[in-house]
Amino acid sequence: MIKITFLGTSASIPTFERNHPAIALEYFDKDYFLLLFDCGENTQLQLMRAGISFMKINIILITHWHADHFAGLIPLLQTMNLEGRKEKLIIIAPEIEEKIELIKKLYYYDIKFKIETIDAINENKLYENKYFEIYSIKVKHTVPSVAYAFKEKDRWKINEEKLKKLNLKKGKWLDKLKKYGKININNKEIKIEDIADIKKGKKIVYSGDCEYDENLAEFAKDCDILIHEATFLEKDKKEYSHSSALDAAKIAKLANAKRLILTHISRRYHENYNELLEEAKSVFENVEIAKDLFQIILK
Amino acid sequence: MIKITFLGTSASIPTFERNHPAIALEYFDKDYFLLLFDCGENTQLQLMRAGISFMKINIILITHWHADHFAGLIPLLQTMNLEGRKEKLIIIAPEIEEKIELIKKLYYYDIKFKIETIDAINENKLYENKYFEIYSIKVKHTVPSVAYAFKEKDRWKINEEKLKKLNLKKGKWLDKLKKYGKININNKEIKIEDIADIKKGKKIVYSGDCEYDENLAEFAKDCDILIHEATFLEKDKKEYSHSSALDAAKIAKLANAKRLILTHISRRYHENYNELLEEAKSVFENVEIAKDLFQIILK
Repeated sequence: MIKITFLGTSASIPTFERNHPAIALEYFDKDYFLLLFDCGENTQLQLMRAGISFMKINIILITHWHADHFAGLIPLLQTMNLEGRKEKLIIIAPEIEEKIELIKKLYYYDIKFKIETIDAINENKLYENKYFEIYSIKVKHTVPSVAYAFKEKDRWKINEEKLKKLNLKKGKWLDKLKKYGKININNKEIKIEDIADIKKGKKIVYSGDCEYDENLAEFAKDCDILIHEATFLEKDKKEYSHSSALDAAKIAKLANAKRLILTHISRRYHENYNELLEEAKSVFENVEIAKDLFQIILK
Repeated sequence: MIKITFLGTSASIPTFERNHPAIALEYFDKDYFLLLFDCGENTQLQLMRAGISFMKINIILITHWHADHFAGLIPLLQTMNLEGRKEKLIIIAPEIEEKIELIKKLYYYDIKFKIETIDAINENKLYENKYFEIYSIKVKHTVPSVAYAFKEKDRWKINEEKLKKLNLKKGKWLDKLKKYGKININNKEIKIEDIADIKKGKKIVYSGDCEYDENLAEFAKDCDILIHEATFLEKDKKEYSHSSALDAAKIAKLANAKRLILTHISRRYHENYNELLEEAKSVFENVEIAKDLFQIILK
């Protein structure tokens, strides 16, 4: 199960309703993983409000180094330290090595746990474990910025009926089949799809801050959830290197996304969210506007 | 008139009730001045809640570079910038030049307004204008830290009855008298106190983070308000370089302060503030515990 919690959904200036950007992604299986996408001011308190333990964060992913996307990182690291964190923390971001050195010089706590840094600009697969992978892609913004994709691995589930039809019984040979995708039994090639059903892994993409960019649609291809910034209405969009609700919807459509969530909403739409939603819906129907502490569960 | 607003009153880990340390001091006269003492996470939102415009801040004073005392500075500078600030901002702190350079490198906004830095470690008078002066003193903490004193200038108000008794009339000579403190009229020395009453300027002292230190009592001598950290009860105080409520009260008594406000309260006393208050009252009667958005007005 995957649970996504929007901790902050404002654009660069926070409001009483919307804190600076941060999104928690919890992955529940035999193991538990907690990922944090961006870490704006007030993220530690928003995590407390959401009932998510910041001590359990495994990976923090920063899209770019504007203060609204990272200012909560410094006090969060301090609090983890004060609470006696021992576990390694992975931080992924563009220019991360330089930035983490600056952060360490800026403030006075010796960080007592290991921080592993992964530079997000290289655009390869950035991280992988048994359950999921993380990718990044450069996006168009005023400063080096990336979007992230969380990609759960596909799983095969043995289909008893298919086995029966082929006159096969469960056994150790299945491990081999899972490993290699095909296997020879009695001189007959058996493919995994012959005896199992695939459970497609979930794919979640977060744009960070960016202007309209079709490369992002390619990156987000067939995703279950596209979380895209929508700072403005199309009519208010100027030279800001941000997206409108319309832009976000076009990307969702091009990507064939299942569901679009708009975030990074300018305070000017404080009483006017419906216009943003309508603008997006004119192109892509399955769209919602995130608000702080809004949650999505994927099973 | 002076209005003090406590924006954040927590110790190093914030709670739902208490944000990280920050105190606004507004000075109302023919001119308006806004000073901010410390700038923990969430200060910009707390200023909005208090109805105080962060655009009008003239001086930010940081006591030391632990994240709970400065993490709100970076997003606040970004917001001032986005809102089009043009006016100079003065930032006073220990090691300020080095730190402001790190902050500028860490994040990506070109700050479009002038930042004047004043190093707080030198312990002289740090700032002076027509109405008030600011001083700092080193305090004992784990890292270079200071306390600050805000000292309003004394004012003389002509006493008509005193003038009458001396058979004197108002005139340009009064300006000279105000300037020099005394003047000769008809071979007789007139002192300013002979014809005027003094209105003593208010003195407000903020300890920042520190352990018990009698030098601070000297620095806070006869102050109107001593804002002192009281992280712990005496029985819970360990090797943390922080003060107990008892420590704070002893300093207030030694200093002959008029009023003591405790702040920087550990979350462990969440439902137990009364014990802190009682501990302080055993030594110094006129004491209160600050909470977020608590205000004091001095006339």
